[in-house]
Amino acid sequence: MLLLEHESKKLLEGYGINTARCIFAEKEDDAVKAAISLGFPVAMKVASREITHKSNVGGVILEVKDEKEVRDAFRRLIRIKHAEGVNVQPMLERGIEVIVGATENEQFGSILMFGLGGVFVEAIRDISMRLIPITRRDAEEMIKETKVYGILKGYRGFKGDLEALIELLLKVSRIVEREDIAEMDLNPVFVYEKGYAVADARIVKGRKRKGAGGETRETIERKIERIGEILNPRSVAVIGASNQPLKVGYMVLKSLSTNPELKIYPINPNLEEIEGLKLKVHPSIESVKADLAIVAVPADKVIEVVKDCIGRVKGVLIISSGFKEADERGKVLQNELAKIAQENEIKIIGPNTFGIVNVRSSINASFTPMFSKLRKGSIALVSQSGGMCHYFMQNFIEDVGFSYILHLGNRCDVDFPEVLRFLKEDRNTKVVALYIEGVEKGRELFEAVSELSEIKPVVVLKAGKSKMADVVSRSHTGSLAGDYGVFISAMKQANAIVVETPLELLDVSKALERIGGKENKKESKIDDCSDDVGAVIATVQAGLGFTCLDIFEERGGNLAKLSDETIKRLHELLPPITMRDNPIDLSFSVLNLDAFREVLKTLSNDSCVGLIVFLLAVSPSWTLPHEIILDILREVSKPMVIVYSSTPDDFRELRVKAESLGIPTYPTIERGARVAARLLSYMFP
Amino acid sequence: MLLLEHESKKLLEGYGINTARCIFAEKEDDAVKAAISLGFPVAMKVASREITHKSNVGGVILEVKDEKEVRDAFRRLIRIKHAEGVNVQPMLERGIEVIVGATENEQFGSILMFGLGGVFVEAIRDISMRLIPITRRDAEEMIKETKVYGILKGYRGFKGDLEALIELLLKVSRIVEREDIAEMDLNPVFVYEKGYAVADARIVKGRKRKGAGGETRETIERKIERIGEILNPRSVAVIGASNQPLKVGYMVLKSLSTNPELKIYPINPNLEEIEGLKLKVHPSIESVKADLAIVAVPADKVIEVVKDCIGRVKGVLIISSGFKEADERGKVLQNELAKIAQENEIKIIGPNTFGIVNVRSSINASFTPMFSKLRKGSIALVSQSGGMCHYFMQNFIEDVGFSYILHLGNRCDVDFPEVLRFLKEDRNTKVVALYIEGVEKGRELFEAVSELSEIKPVVVLKAGKSKMADVVSRSHTGSLAGDYGVFISAMKQANAIVVETPLELLDVSKALERIGGKENKKESKIDDCSDDVGAVIATVQAGLGFTCLDIFEERGGNLAKLSDETIKRLHELLPPITMRDNPIDLSFSVLNLDAFREVLKTLSNDSCVGLIVFLLAVSPSWTLPHEIILDILREVSKPMVIVYSSTPDDFRELRVKAESLGIPTYPTIERGARVAARLLSYMFP
Repeated sequence: MLLLEHESKKLLEGYGINTARCIFAEKEDDAVKAAISLGFPVAMKVASREITHKSNVGGVILEVKDEKEVRDAFRRLIRIKHAEGVNVQPMLERGIEVIVGATENEQFGSILMFGLGGVFVEAIRDISMRLIPITRRDAEEMIKETKVYGILKGYRGFKGDLEALIELLLKVSRIVEREDIAEMDLNPVFVYEKGYAVADARIVKGRKRKGAGGETRETIERKIERIGEILNPRSVAVIGASNQPLKVGYMVLKSLSTNPELKIYPINPNLEEIEGLKLKVHPSIESVKADLAIVAVPADKVIEVVKDCIGRVKGVLIISSGFKEADERGKVLQNELAKIAQENEIKIIGPNTFGIVNVRSSINASFTPMFSKLRKGSIALVSQSGGMCHYFMQNFIEDVGFSYILHLGNRCDVDFPEVLRFLKEDRNTKVVALYIEGVEKGRELFEAVSELSEIKPVVVLKAGKSKMADVVSRSHTGSLAGDYGVFISAMKQANAIVVETPLELLDVSKALERIGGKENKKESKIDDCSDDVGAVIATVQAGLGFTCLDIFEERGGNLAKLSDETIKRLHELLPPITMRDNPIDLSFSVLNLDAFREVLKTLSNDSCVGLIVFLLAVSPSWTLPHEIILDILREVSKPMVIVYSSTPDDFRELRVKAESLGIPTYPTIERGARVAARLLSYMFP
Repeated sequence: MLLLEHESKKLLEGYGINTARCIFAEKEDDAVKAAISLGFPVAMKVASREITHKSNVGGVILEVKDEKEVRDAFRRLIRIKHAEGVNVQPMLERGIEVIVGATENEQFGSILMFGLGGVFVEAIRDISMRLIPITRRDAEEMIKETKVYGILKGYRGFKGDLEALIELLLKVSRIVEREDIAEMDLNPVFVYEKGYAVADARIVKGRKRKGAGGETRETIERKIERIGEILNPRSVAVIGASNQPLKVGYMVLKSLSTNPELKIYPINPNLEEIEGLKLKVHPSIESVKADLAIVAVPADKVIEVVKDCIGRVKGVLIISSGFKEADERGKVLQNELAKIAQENEIKIIGPNTFGIVNVRSSINASFTPMFSKLRKGSIALVSQSGGMCHYFMQNFIEDVGFSYILHLGNRCDVDFPEVLRFLKEDRNTKVVALYIEGVEKGRELFEAVSELSEIKPVVVLKAGKSKMADVVSRSHTGSLAGDYGVFISAMKQANAIVVETPLELLDVSKALERIGGKENKKESKIDDCSDDVGAVIATVQAGLGFTCLDIFEERGGNLAKLSDETIKRLHELLPPITMRDNPIDLSFSVLNLDAFREVLKTLSNDSCVGLIVFLLAVSPSWTLPHEIILDILREVSKPMVIVYSSTPDDFRELRVKAESLGIPTYPTIERGARVAARLLSYMFP
């Protein structure tokens, strides 16, 4: 139910919010009395539950100066279609116009909005968002993310009371939490040098959604334990086993059989042995007890098979497709699966997944034998798309070490939140990388990411940024893709690192695994920095430094302001032809090893340097033996990122050595610069 | 000289521009008369050549309703410091506030600006720019580039008269061209549903710069001919020849000597033969006549050497550094070089360049022997940075075929404009790729690019997007880097394709070389499309399609709206589980070759499809032999871009085959998606 303006303002005033006090008048004489009591001039506005944009229907009259004008104005306003009365309020001094709003999101529940106000809000879209409730830090960040902050902090004689604005945001968050408010629009709010005033307010009451969460009958601890069991199986049954090499039922067995310690039970009533793999086939699951059963039979048969598994396995991984992603019939089947999982002592991963890989324990429970070749490491990749896992592997199989690769498929039971809670406890995982297309339990995901990010870095790529993707992904994953902006705001609020492209997801994850993320901050001398901590770019070729800086800054990276002492030392170390501020062009000086070493040491000792980006494109005149480069880099105490442009073999060789020293190394300026920007804002927010 | 508001408006009115007519009053009685003649209410504003922002000093009083109020207002305004009088004007109906402005740029001359108006222009920065004079199409594009266009074209009851606004922009362009105007600010201009009114105007008169151009004594044709001669030398002298393998004077000889047809004259009074290369050394240039002399001696000796070259060579390429990029002394030396070139029959490339490579004729006149291995092709790369050339080579030596690689260095004589004019005529060059850090002769570059882009695609990467780069690059290249925004606007106006990262520069160039750019448009059925022509994304894995779409759209790409007929056919060809709109998920259907072929044919026949992006991440279950993929792609008549994610060897193999069919192929979604966006907006602007 839409409140009239004076009702909305009364509600706000009850929470101590300053509004332009509004007197509601149904009769002309009451309007005159109201105006006199407020003092001239006044503003008069039509009051109606049916009119959304009052100014569009001539429903706002400003600078009403005397009784006669009040009467004229009243008569004009009350004649507007749907008018229920007229609101009289004092003329406000004009301040900086902002909007403060609240809305409901299906996945995430109540959302707070802030941004540039006025009639053109939607066209300009200078908006930041957070899930309600917000903290003071959230409020501060919301303001700083917008362009209107540029005006609020002081611009051409304007200046806004930031402290009062933060209080307003916190109060609105509190109101939405406590009252049944579905929608709120305070627009414009005039922000003054001292204080603010809500000039117009529009509140819709209604039962608000909590944001979809997960209510299952299991406790969180029990869930974590069971996820751990099925991700670390000692025995696996494969239902739908095949001996035809291109069939999924064969490929899964091939993947599994690379681990000689794993007990594998192929199940197929029509086979006796899997040729080539030398595995004895069991006629049915009834004669078997295993930690995990992998199901690769047609969709129609899946329910029956899963029911047979109850009591015999701890978890089922369903590769079969033809469920929610397919059609109405598939949706019904999937709901049945969900019900089975809820009502029985069995967890279900999938359906419609290529599988899971426990890289640390060499268990490849997927139909992709190639995944048995993955390098062991500390990154857990949890993905909503199997295709993206394959894409990642082609690009990163050499580069990155994994603890797990988990494709959750249609998530009829096991979903992101519980997997994240498991990974939080998992000692083999240092960094969690998420590829998400759309989720239903947004609020629960937000909470799981918030908890996880307290312990280890979480890097998120969300597909669906484009205008069209929203519509499209609905039909694909069978999930409500949700609004990209809300999702990203929620992830930022949960302290996840949000990236924008697939390569960035694993590039940044690798960097964090190598460098160690926030911990590194403690080791380095940055507490003395009175300015913002930033990166320094040291390049052997000026052009590389420039283009790196452009990409770095575009992704929000901040360049360190070097101390006078540092600059002075750099001028001693480098000849006049080089750039000796930030970026620093080492140029030929890189061949003078003492100078090279001293430059890096000097940069590393500057208390405002949080990260060093070193760029080198190999060319005949610049080549330095790897060992010399590494010896010098080894002495640098600050986190580093290297861009090394060379032949594929030479690059690979240096990368492996540098990364063993904890220095992530990339072949292109683009990738190195983007990683550097993300790292910096993660380590020094 | 700053005009007072009424003077500014009078000037504008002389050109038929609608302003809120302004009457200037020095005395209170005159103000009253003015107000009565205009009719109440009026607006009154302080008039002063010293006050830039009138509203900041309380210098604007609105809604003045009668004689008494005029007198009050006049007295308040005239008391403001620096007041010269008071302007009286009618109160204007408020429309959509825009700004129209003109300013001067050192490199490019007069610039026209358009954008969201009001007091917060600078904080919001919703601005587009073009060099003056503009065309009607420029005016249309300027408006469409801004966010305020979203309001002007119709938004919540607001709507702006676009036709009138275009006329206003064209008129302002004409005024700035004809009058001596250094700066103009029409802000706000109220745009109404019918017409507009300039509410406030501020004009600064003054001799305007033309934008730096090139005045040399040579005619353009003669210049082109001479550039051609030195880029295609049959004989080359190397002054400063050395037989020490790590010296530049040796490396250049090594590079040159890979071409057995080239006559090479090493010059060094202290050597007799270059060991290893078996080249006889000449004691001085005096005994030699050559097309080109390459100079690799210390900076101090360069002037003397170049003077010796006059009459003996057509052009000199100076590798030596220590000129404008170094210090004051270097600047003096460089100016001397420029003078020598101007006054004599000799062209100079550099100084401070690693050289030039004529790939088609196998002439590697650089100190990088590796460049002798470059593939022959039709892309000319002209770069302001040598380091970037090396970076490009490491990443593209296998991928891309070149006609020329030209590093212009400090450009004391040969500069971008004349090189571009040469490349326009060069039959071996189909696409021109430019890496630019900063230029002095902006207006001449604009003209050269405009002419070149009529004939062949020009792709531009400009370093210096970041806030800090401007300052930094000044010290590096010794050039005024200029404002990134103005530069980019000028390049767009010249119909160049502006890219944002180094890889993109050559990725896009290669695509244009393969596809043939605009010509392709004529061949394909797109004239029937009643909507905007767009791309279609066809993927074998849904996730790849989503992330591709996000990146594609972020770079301004437009997805084709498929016809009902196309959609119907896709529904016949593909099972229900796939996405059958745009993007299209082929999924397992890719293995049904008839369906695969028919899907691509159907897409290709849709008149609104301008480009097809095909994505495939190889995984065991998806692998298709290259020949099958290529056979199907060969039948597609529309331009295509492929993203093929596989092992490096497998990728390379497919790439070579696909590109020989004119289909550019990339290993990552990121690169493919960005290229597709650029291609589309180039082919179908």
